[in-house]
Amino acid sequence: MCIPGCLERVQKELTRRQVLAGAAAITGLAMTGRDASAAGKRGRAASRSFQRVVELTHPYSDKFPHWRGDASVVQRTVVSSTDVGEDWNVYQWLLDEHAGTHIDAPFHRNADGMTVDQIPAEDLVLPLAIVDIRSRASQDDDAEVTPDDLKAWEKKYGDFPDDCCVAMNSGWDKHVWSEKFINFDDNQVRHFPGFHVEAAQYLLEEWNVKALAVDTPSLDQGRTADYPVHVAWLGSNRWGLENVANLARVPAWGSTIVVGAPRIVGATGGHSRTFALV
Amino acid sequence: MCIPGCLERVQKELTRRQVLAGAAAITGLAMTGRDASAAGKRGRAASRSFQRVVELTHPYSDKFPHWRGDASVVQRTVVSSTDVGEDWNVYQWLLDEHAGTHIDAPFHRNADGMTVDQIPAEDLVLPLAIVDIRSRASQDDDAEVTPDDLKAWEKKYGDFPDDCCVAMNSGWDKHVWSEKFINFDDNQVRHFPGFHVEAAQYLLEEWNVKALAVDTPSLDQGRTADYPVHVAWLGSNRWGLENVANLARVPAWGSTIVVGAPRIVGATGGHSRTFALV
Repeated sequence: MCIPGCLERVQKELTRRQVLAGAAAITGLAMTGRDASAAGKRGRAASRSFQRVVELTHPYSDKFPHWRGDASVVQRTVVSSTDVGEDWNVYQWLLDEHAGTHIDAPFHRNADGMTVDQIPAEDLVLPLAIVDIRSRASQDDDAEVTPDDLKAWEKKYGDFPDDCCVAMNSGWDKHVWSEKFINFDDNQVRHFPGFHVEAAQYLLEEWNVKALAVDTPSLDQGRTADYPVHVAWLGSNRWGLENVANLARVPAWGSTIVVGAPRIVGATGGHSRTFALV
Repeated sequence: MCIPGCLERVQKELTRRQVLAGAAAITGLAMTGRDASAAGKRGRAASRSFQRVVELTHPYSDKFPHWRGDASVVQRTVVSSTDVGEDWNVYQWLLDEHAGTHIDAPFHRNADGMTVDQIPAEDLVLPLAIVDIRSRASQDDDAEVTPDDLKAWEKKYGDFPDDCCVAMNSGWDKHVWSEKFINFDDNQVRHFPGFHVEAAQYLLEEWNVKALAVDTPSLDQGRTADYPVHVAWLGSNRWGLENVANLARVPAWGSTIVVGAPRIVGATGGHSRTFALV
């Protein structure tokens, strides 16, 4: 009773999921991302393994290029030696929430969304799927991840894993210490890659995806005026991650992203030490 | 040519390491922690797997009990809507480095030690060994982890894994929102559990340990005047983690701790989202 192509799909699905789940026994098509309600629960319980750790965080200081174009608010206060003793070093820091490698909590652009401290630990450790648009972004500063890019990823690597984070690798992290990173034109319009809103909507509608990540300063491409990806994605109570480093050192699928988002009560975002477990 | 007890030791070692390393083939005693130079390299390459994520971070706000006894420096600045648009929420934060669940970088008490941003990613994702002194700490606010506690752990669970983090579970995290957490007496002396310096020295000399963690405000017990554990441990260019939550939800061995230490250039410590992968 198999429709055309079904057997091949089951076969592909079984093979890929068996690899993803390691030694865990996988038995059928119920594990596909499209069957989100059942699959999310079972996918999360699957065994995950790794052998090495990749740094996905840029060093953060007042030198970090801010989205606004001016300096990041990173200021250090030295706590006096009368407080702590002369052999000790203790500082306080004034920090921007939305600079450096940082999380966007849903509340950043959704009055009813979660603040950073409300995001559960389980939701900050996710399967990582990386969509590589470096070739196009090297020719076009306004390149975007489109639904076609996502479908091409599926064709090459299989379904997007349940509860995953989908990351754009545009190669933009190599510009981080130059003006190219924010890339203002003469009209003060920014130019850097991001997700197209149709790609965000495709992931919201077709797959069971928890988070988006980009190696540029914004989920939306630089020249946007209305930030439709922020509106759609954070509006769905999902989180984003911006200014990610070193995605080229991580395979397109099979690794885990761990986002050390600060558990600060009420935060809308914040510098987040981020690793890939590969 | 086996000395008495050697065969049993090899057998125990093989069994335990095989479990720790998952499917990876382990072949002999060269993997013990005491043979640190060879074992560290091989231990790090071993496969690590997990099925669930445990939150080890307390929520951080100005309500968090500060080591000094006054308020934690957590202050929020609301970025004005003229900067970001009225539908957006964006803040800046003034934060203490040494409050909440936080890392102590070696530089905190070692002028030649690493700052937080200098700690490699690989060193923030470590096998976790938990030493449980809850029974004693429930009777004695000044309880300490001693070398005997560590030897008892070894007897029960085997060698400390290479490059591991050794954590004290004193059960103190349950006091976090009460005065008992800092626990000043009438003479303004603090009383809470910590590591005894001899335990720190035992781990430095006998095992290949990267980090110490405690569920109290300090690696040293509260009533110390000279902080010998900080001096010895940070002095060896190793890091510590304080105010850890929920260690009772993690098994004594076999899990991985991930410390999202902020990659802030020059920091001596900082609020660190921390997970156990179990």
